Formats: sequence, C-alpha cells, structure tokens
Amino acid sequence: MTATGSGHANGRADVAVVGGGPIGMGIAWRCAQRGLRTVLHDPAPGSGASSVAAGMLAPVAESHFGEAELTRLLVDSAARWPAFAAELTAVTGQDIGYRTDGTLVVTLTGDDQREAHRLWAYQQSLDLPITLLRATALREREPALAPRARGGALMPDDHQVDPRRLVAALDTALDRAGVTVVPQPVTDVSTLDAQVVVVAAGCGSATLTGLPIRPVKGQILRLRAPAGAVGFRHVIRGYADGRHVYLVPRGDGEVVVGATVEERGDTTVTAGAVLELLRAAADLLPEIAEYELVEARAAARPGTPDNAPLLGWHRMPGDGRRVLVATGHHRHGIVLTPVTADLIADLAAGADPDPVLAPFQPGRFTAATRENAREKEPWS
Amino acid sequence: MTATGSGHANGRADVAVVGGGPIGMGIAWRCAQRGLRTVLHDPAPGSGASSVAAGMLAPVAESHFGEAELTRLLVDSAARWPAFAAELTAVTGQDIGYRTDGTLVVTLTGDDQREAHRLWAYQQSLDLPITLLRATALREREPALAPRARGGALMPDDHQVDPRRLVAALDTALDRAGVTVVPQPVTDVSTLDAQVVVVAAGCGSATLTGLPIRPVKGQILRLRAPAGAVGFRHVIRGYADGRHVYLVPRGDGEVVVGATVEERGDTTVTAGAVLELLRAAADLLPEIAEYELVEARAAARPGTPDNAPLLGWHRMPGDGRRVLVATGHHRHGIVLTPVTADLIADLAAGADPDPVLAPFQPGRFTAATRENAREKEPWS
Repeated sequence: MTATGSGHANGRADVAVVGGGPIGMGIAWRCAQRGLRTVLHDPAPGSGASSVAAGMLAPVAESHFGEAELTRLLVDSAARWPAFAAELTAVTGQDIGYRTDGTLVVTLTGDDQREAHRLWAYQQSLDLPITLLRATALREREPALAPRARGGALMPDDHQVDPRRLVAALDTALDRAGVTVVPQPVTDVSTLDAQVVVVAAGCGSATLTGLPIRPVKGQILRLRAPAGAVGFRHVIRGYADGRHVYLVPRGDGEVVVGATVEERGDTTVTAGAVLELLRAAADLLPEIAEYELVEARAAARPGTPDNAPLLGWHRMPGDGRRVLVATGHHRHGIVLTPVTADLIADLAAGADPDPVLAPFQPGRFTAATRENAREKEPWS
Repeated sequence: MTATGSGHANGRADVAVVGGGPIGMGIAWRCAQRGLRTVLHDPAPGSGASSVAAGMLAPVAESHFGEAELTRLLVDSAARWPAFAAELTAVTGQDIGYRTDGTLVVTLTGDDQREAHRLWAYQQSLDLPITLLRATALREREPALAPRARGGALMPDDHQVDPRRLVAALDTALDRAGVTVVPQPVTDVSTLDAQVVVVAAGCGSATLTGLPIRPVKGQILRLRAPAGAVGFRHVIRGYADGRHVYLVPRGDGEVVVGATVEERGDTTVTAGAVLELLRAAADLLPEIAEYELVEARAAARPGTPDNAPLLGWHRMPGDGRRVLVATGHHRHGIVLTPVTADLIADLAAGADPDPVLAPFQPGRFTAATRENAREKEPWS
C-alpha cells in the first residue's frame, strides 16, 4: 500500500474509511476506482473477524424466517461474487480460494430432518435454488459422509472464498489503486480530514457512532487433511443431533469447522465449544478425526438488533455531521462484501441511495430504542 | 572408582550426559553433587516429552497386571519425591508445583466400574494405598464431579508435579552445581570425551545405542479455569464410557487433560484425539466446558518391549565401549526421575548396581530379539 502521507499530503482526502476488514477494504477499493482520493485507517488491516471467518457465500443456506429483506441482499451480493472474484484475481494475480462446488446440507436424526425441512420449505417458497436429496443421493455426491446421514439438500449457488486470501488480495488491490493506508487507530471520526467518512469498523463501530452494534462471539477451528487431501468437495452444513455445524474444504487441504454463535464479546476459545464443534463435525464426516487440528480461534461478529447490517448515511449524535456507515454484517460480512463495496462507494461518490439499501438504514432502531427506554421507565 | 583419575589431569569430563529432559538433568545434578565433573549435551533442554507431560506421580494408579517389578520401582521413586522436591526447591528457590492432594479414580458406567474394580483388586493385593469410595463419598470429596459418577477410589499417595517448572528448577540446579551444558546435538556417543557417557535421550536413545526403544505418541491438552479458579483439587483419573482420561489441576488455574497412547511417532495433534479427550473430560467434570483451551500438543514417549525403562550399563554394538543407559521411561519419566537420578549417578561414580535395577538391564531383550530374527528367517 502507499506510504502514509504520500500523494495526498497537500490535499484533503475525498474519502476516509475507518476499518480495514473486507468491508472497509472493498469500499476503499471501489471508491478509488471511482476516482476518489481514498484513505483507509486501520492499525492492522485484516486482523479482525474476517481472519477467523470461514468464508461461506451462502445466500440460500443463510436465509431464515422473517429475514426476507436480508435474503434479497444476500442473493444480490452473491450474484456479484463471480465478477468481484474475477476482477480481484485479475488485478492482483492472487488466488482468493473462490470455489463454486456448492453446499450440501445434511441431517442425522429424525428431529434434525424435521427441523431442516421446515427451513427448506421456506427457502423453496422464496424460489431459492435448492434440491432435496435422499440419503443415497447424498452419499453418491459425498461418499465420505457418515452412514448415519439421513437426508439433505443441495444448494448449488452457495459457494465459498478464503477470507484470509481475500484480505491479502484486497491489500494488493488497494495498493494498485493508490489507496493510502494509515496504520493508526481512530477513536473519534470528527478528527478525520475528509469530505466523506465511512465507518466500517465492525464491532468497533458502536463506540464510533453510537449505533446499537453488539459483539456476537464465534468460535471456529481449522483442520488440515493428511497429505492435504480433503475427502469431500462441497461445503457441508450439518444438523447433527440438534447441533449446527459447517465444514468448508479448501483446495490446500484446510477444512474450516464452525461456528458457535454466543452473546458475549470475549475471544476466549473454550473447551466446550471445541468439543461440540468437533463432535458434530466428526458425526457428519468421520474421517476428520484423523485430520490435524491446526488452529482454534474466536472473534466477535458485529451484530445488530435485527441481525441485518447498517448501510447508509447516519447523523452523528455529537456534532450532527453525516457519516456513511457499513457495519453490523454479523455472520454475512464476506458474502456481503461486493454489494456493500459497490453501493457504499456509490453513496460516497454522491449518488442517491440504491433502493436495495432502504431496509438497512442505520437509523432504523432509533425510535424503537427510545420506545423501549420509555416502556422500561416505570420499572427502573 | 572408574569414573575418576587421569581424566581430571587433562581436563576430560568425568561424566557426559546425553539428553536434557528431567531424567538426564536429574542424573547430571546428582553426578555433580557426587563431585563428578559433569557435562550435559542437549540442543534444547526440557523441550522433549517432558514439556508435554502432565506430571502425575502415580505409583498406585499406574500399577498394572504383570508389571510388579515396575510397580516396585514406581513406589520406590515416588517415596523419594518429597525429599527430591524439597531439596530442589531449597537449592533453587523455585516452585515446582509439587502437590500432594492425592488422586481420585472415577467411573461412569457399569462397564467402567467392572473394569476398574479388577485393577483395584489387583492393586489392593499388592498392599498399595487405595480406598474404594461410593458415589456419595466421591462427590463429597469433589462436588464438581458429574452426577453420573458411579464409584471410585482414592489413592492418597499418588501426587503431582509440574514438569515444565521441574525442568526450569533443574536447569537452575545444574547451574548452581557447576554442570556444563553443551547446546549441541550428539549423533555418536564415541565422539564424547568423558570417562562415563550416560545416554538419557528418550526416543533419540534408539539410534544412539541400538536398543529397542520405540516412540509412543501421546496427545495432551492444557486448559485454564476462568479467573484461575479450578473447581477440583485432586488429580482425577476417569473411566468414562470405556475411555481413559486424566485431569491434573494446578495451583495457577491450569488443568492438564491427557492422554492418548498411540503406536506412532509423529507429533501431529489430531481432531479425533482432542475430541475424545474433551468428551471424556467433560463427561467427568462438566465445568471444564467453560475452561479456556490453551494448548494442544503431542510428544513421543520412549517405549520399550515390556514398557519398563532401560537402566544400567550397556555395551555399544560398534566399539564395545560401555555406556550407561537411562531411558525407555514411557509414561513414567517424571515419577521415575528421583530413583533414576540417584541410582544412575551411583553407577557413574563407580558403585555396584543397586539390586532394584536388576529387572531393568538394558540388554534384557537382546536374546529374545535374536530369537525372533531366527524364527522369521524361513519366511523371509
């Protein structure tokens, strides 16, 4: 990346992006491509939640009841991924581990099957691409699956990317695009000298903006197959005796196993979480017992009251200055990187908001928050 | 005295010890205390199997059918531990984590109980200190035990020490005693210029001596209790649905969970081993699910054909030179450190072998090995 101060030393930046995860880096890249002089602030780009993330691009599997608007955004962004990946690879010459082998959802027990079927029926009602499979068809596709596998579904459009490679490529792309990276933390956005400030600081966005973002802890494991040969090629998402787990196979022999979803902000790896993840994963794919356990990590996803991201203009509580916000991506930061980068860069360049952003306005909780506070008053 | 004399005149060492684990360091310490000029050779003292070991001093729990002579040695060495620990702490001022809270053996299922009872009856027949406990008495001693705990036994003389602290203290003691440490690997003991060479190189002793020592892989975990407060004080050894596991609580909040016993020499940590250790440990002590998983490691224990150590003089196959051997301690290296250090140092100083060493002569497998080779000839 360009050294601090070079190039822009005597001029105010057009855009200052706070936060160097894939979201912030993607936005900075798109801004620079639109001719905006862009500065990105992060003491350690790529070291946050994305360094722990599995990188599933799963608009279908991640579609849940009552989140139709989020599903539309996931589908929109997933559709942008092939071109985004191709462009990033072409610009940088770096492999980002983008794979389109599809996702298999697998159930083990009758209860698992019933739980999954409810969601599959909902996903089918939205016309999402999903094919239900019997156990035999499942094992034909992935012979390594446990004999216990009872049923499942193929989601051919649910893909994957390697977030660590993604961040490395975005780092190169920012350099090529002339983005300045300032490796300092930002504690007050009013100190930033730029026409437009974009806050894309994950959980750190809460104190920067006052918006209701909370940490949602996720614990995740990285395994490595003997001789680098993973015995399955689909992303496997399992319902295993009531536990949810996923296994993401990489081309280099790595398998990511995740993830817990915990309402706490620490990043401690606990024995219980590792036990539950390994138990569910080995119940689905027994061969992983022989895999090396390479890493166990935890990170904090930025969650919001409705689990959907905060995307758009926001007026700061103190000085009333307007900033752009792109955070609260929760479990969806990687899949939502292309659409977030494109549409936030459009806003930074002066465009009117794309209608797709309407449900994700950062201020949407403000009234509700006040009402909650009033309701609680008699009891406080 | 064979180990002194003209050696002093030309600056030659009296004793060269190859291997800087607790065994080699203990021997070197005792040799120096006997006035022998001692050199210890190890590129990285304390970095072998002992850095992974749990440090149980368990002459009773580790007494198995058909190993009566080994049991006598374990009991002998365990009896030396209080004085050994006191002396080492007094000399160095360092805490080695020596704890005498005793060991509780716990069973979960009827099958576990029957398996354990067979061994307890054998251990009682040897007059070893062991008290059988009902489930209620067990939980009175350790309320954190799972409600499933069915029965158990108290072994009050089975203690523990922290092997990493032990090695650190021995390092200081060697320094105080004037032992020279040469941080270079030794590949050929004939190159060592010393009156007496002691091979205490763990699994590395096989190629140095030609003796039948094989690696026995052990995988082990280190957990940490929240706020450093471990909810139990005994060493817990469990029979958990047919799986054997132990949990060793330290004063600093660490809990060591181990260990696999695998006939292989690699040091890869596998998902399956971590899963089985955590499952059994959490079945015994549910609270460990909330503990931090700090470390997962594997190391190779030095095993022998009869799982007993090799202790005494050995004639080298090449030049016929006699060397002292102290290796093959398998799962018992830490508990056997004091007796090994005392008796091997006696031999290095010219004493006749203590009768307790008779069953552990390094050459005891030679005839059998030749016979095996002859028997195989017709088929080769």
